[in-house]
Amino acid sequence: MVKVAVVGSIALDSIETMYGSRRDVLGGSATFISIASSYLAPTGVVGIIGTDFPTEGRTFFERLGVDTTGLETAEGATFRWVGRYHQDMIGRDTLATNLGVFENFRPQVPDVYRSAPYVVLGNIHPGLQLHFLDQIPRAQFVVADTMKLWIDSAAEELGQVIKRSHLFIVNDEEARQITGEVNLARAAQALLARGPSYVVIKRGEHGASLHHAHGCFYVPAVPLLEVKDPTGAGDSFLGGLIGFIARMDRLSDEVLRQALVVAGAMASFTVEDFSVGRLAVLEKTELLERCGQIRSMTGVGHIDI
Amino acid sequence: MVKVAVVGSIALDSIETMYGSRRDVLGGSATFISIASSYLAPTGVVGIIGTDFPTEGRTFFERLGVDTTGLETAEGATFRWVGRYHQDMIGRDTLATNLGVFENFRPQVPDVYRSAPYVVLGNIHPGLQLHFLDQIPRAQFVVADTMKLWIDSAAEELGQVIKRSHLFIVNDEEARQITGEVNLARAAQALLARGPSYVVIKRGEHGASLHHAHGCFYVPAVPLLEVKDPTGAGDSFLGGLIGFIARMDRLSDEVLRQALVVAGAMASFTVEDFSVGRLAVLEKTELLERCGQIRSMTGVGHIDI
Repeated sequence: MVKVAVVGSIALDSIETMYGSRRDVLGGSATFISIASSYLAPTGVVGIIGTDFPTEGRTFFERLGVDTTGLETAEGATFRWVGRYHQDMIGRDTLATNLGVFENFRPQVPDVYRSAPYVVLGNIHPGLQLHFLDQIPRAQFVVADTMKLWIDSAAEELGQVIKRSHLFIVNDEEARQITGEVNLARAAQALLARGPSYVVIKRGEHGASLHHAHGCFYVPAVPLLEVKDPTGAGDSFLGGLIGFIARMDRLSDEVLRQALVVAGAMASFTVEDFSVGRLAVLEKTELLERCGQIRSMTGVGHIDI
Repeated sequence: MVKVAVVGSIALDSIETMYGSRRDVLGGSATFISIASSYLAPTGVVGIIGTDFPTEGRTFFERLGVDTTGLETAEGATFRWVGRYHQDMIGRDTLATNLGVFENFRPQVPDVYRSAPYVVLGNIHPGLQLHFLDQIPRAQFVVADTMKLWIDSAAEELGQVIKRSHLFIVNDEEARQITGEVNLARAAQALLARGPSYVVIKRGEHGASLHHAHGCFYVPAVPLLEVKDPTGAGDSFLGGLIGFIARMDRLSDEVLRQALVVAGAMASFTVEDFSVGRLAVLEKTELLERCGQIRSMTGVGHIDI
C-alpha cells in the first residue's frame, strides 16, 4: 500500500558544474522526492513523461521501489531543463527550458494512491498542486514546496496551497519573498500564521530549520568538501523528511527532529554526484552513519557557570 | 589576576537602525569582547580613548568587572564610527569614520596582563595585533579576529596573525575572501592549514561553526524576532567564547562546544538593544536559560530505520 503520494515534475536535465557536465539525466522535483522517500516508506509518484523517455528511466524508479502507477506517458517530448551552476554552487543560469508534455499536465491520482495518508506537493504550479490534493480527500499530512516563479505569478493559488498544507517548505529567499519579512524568524512566524502547523526553511550550506508554534529545531548541513551537483538537494531533503515521518507514522516533536536529520543526510548524499547517481547506490548503513555525523555536529551537554 | 587579555578598538558609535538611532554610544571590538568575557572570567582590556571620552565610560567598564589598567587616554578625540544598517540588519553603510587618537595607537600590555594565558586579538590592524601578542610571550591560547579592510590591505601581517593564533574567527564572506574557496567547509580546511588548531566561521542569522582537524561543531543562532542593533554581535560572540574557555581553563572538545553555545547566547543578547545596553543588565540566569534554549534547538536522539 502506498503511504506517500508524490506529485511534481519529471525531467531530463542537462547540467554543467565545475565538476563536469551531464546530458539528459534524470531530474525533476517528483523524481528526487519519490526516490528519497521510497528508501523509508512505500511511495508512489504522479508525473508525466514523453514518449522519448528512456525505458531504463521507468525501470529505474521501480528498481528503487517507487510505485509508478501514477506515471503518465503522453505523446511528445519529456520536460527538459538545461542549466549551468555558478562556482559558488548556489547561483545557476537556466540555459533552456522545454516544457514538452509537461505543458498539458493534469495530475491524476491512481486509485492505489487515494488512501495515502502522506501527500507531497512537489514544486509545480500551485493550481496543479491543489488539483492533486483535491483527489486525496483523506490526506492526513500534506507537505508542500514551491519556487520563485509561482510566488511571482500565482500568489493566490499558492496561498491556498500554504493554507492547506501541514508543513510548508521553502528556502530562505522564498520565505522572505512570500512574507516580505527579512528576518527569517519573523518570516517563519508569518508563514505559520497562514495555515501550516510546521514551516521548514532551507538555508543551503547552513542547514535548515523547522518552525512551529512552540519553538524551532535546527539541523546543520554536512560540511561536504565536494558538491558535484546541487540539483535535487531540496527535493531529496523533502523526500527524506516525509519518508521518515511516514515510516514512523506519528508526528511527535522527536520524530520531526529525527526526520530533519534524515532529510539533511539524504540531501547531502544527493549533491555528491550528478542527478540521482548517488541516491541510486545509497546503502542504509551509509544513511544511518551520516545521520550520526549530523547529530554529533550539534550534540552538547548541560552548561553551568 | 587577569586571565583574558583583550586588545581592540574602543569607539563612540552613532548608529541608525530600523528601530531608532543612538549618538556617541559605547562601541568598538575591545569593548564588546571584554565586557562579554568579563561575565565569565577576569578580563583586562587594552585600548585607547581620547580626552573627550566620558568619565562614565571608564567606570562603566569597571562596574562590569573589566580591568581597565590597559586603557590609555591620549590627547584628542576618541575613535568615532557613524553607520546606518540596512533593513536586512546585515548590510550597513559607514557614513563617517574619525580615527582620532586611534590613528597613533600602539598597544602597551600592562604588567598585570603579561601572564594572562588567554589572549584575544580583536579586530584592529594585524600589525598592532602582532605587536600586542609579542608582549605576552607565554600566551597559551590566542584567539584572533579580523575584517575585510585588513584582508585587502595587510594580507602579509594578517597571515602572521593567522599562523600565530590557536583559534581564528571570521565570518563566511571573510573566510571565502581570505582563502579563495567558495565552499565554506573547504575555506575552513584552508584556514586550518595556515596554522590555527581551530577555525570559527560566523554565519550571521544562521549561527556559527567550529572546525578542527577531526570534525565540526555547529551552533544555530537564536531566532530573535527583533534585532535592534547588530553592532558588536561578532565581538560579544568572541568574548563569550574566550570567557567560557578561560573559566573552564581547559580545551576539551566538550568545553569548546559549550563555549560556542555561550558565545551564541551572548551575541543574541547584544543585538537585543543598542550598543552594550543589553549586556550591561544581563543576569546569569538569563544567560543560562538562553544556553538551554540553544541546546534544545538541536537536541535529537539516536536514529534508527
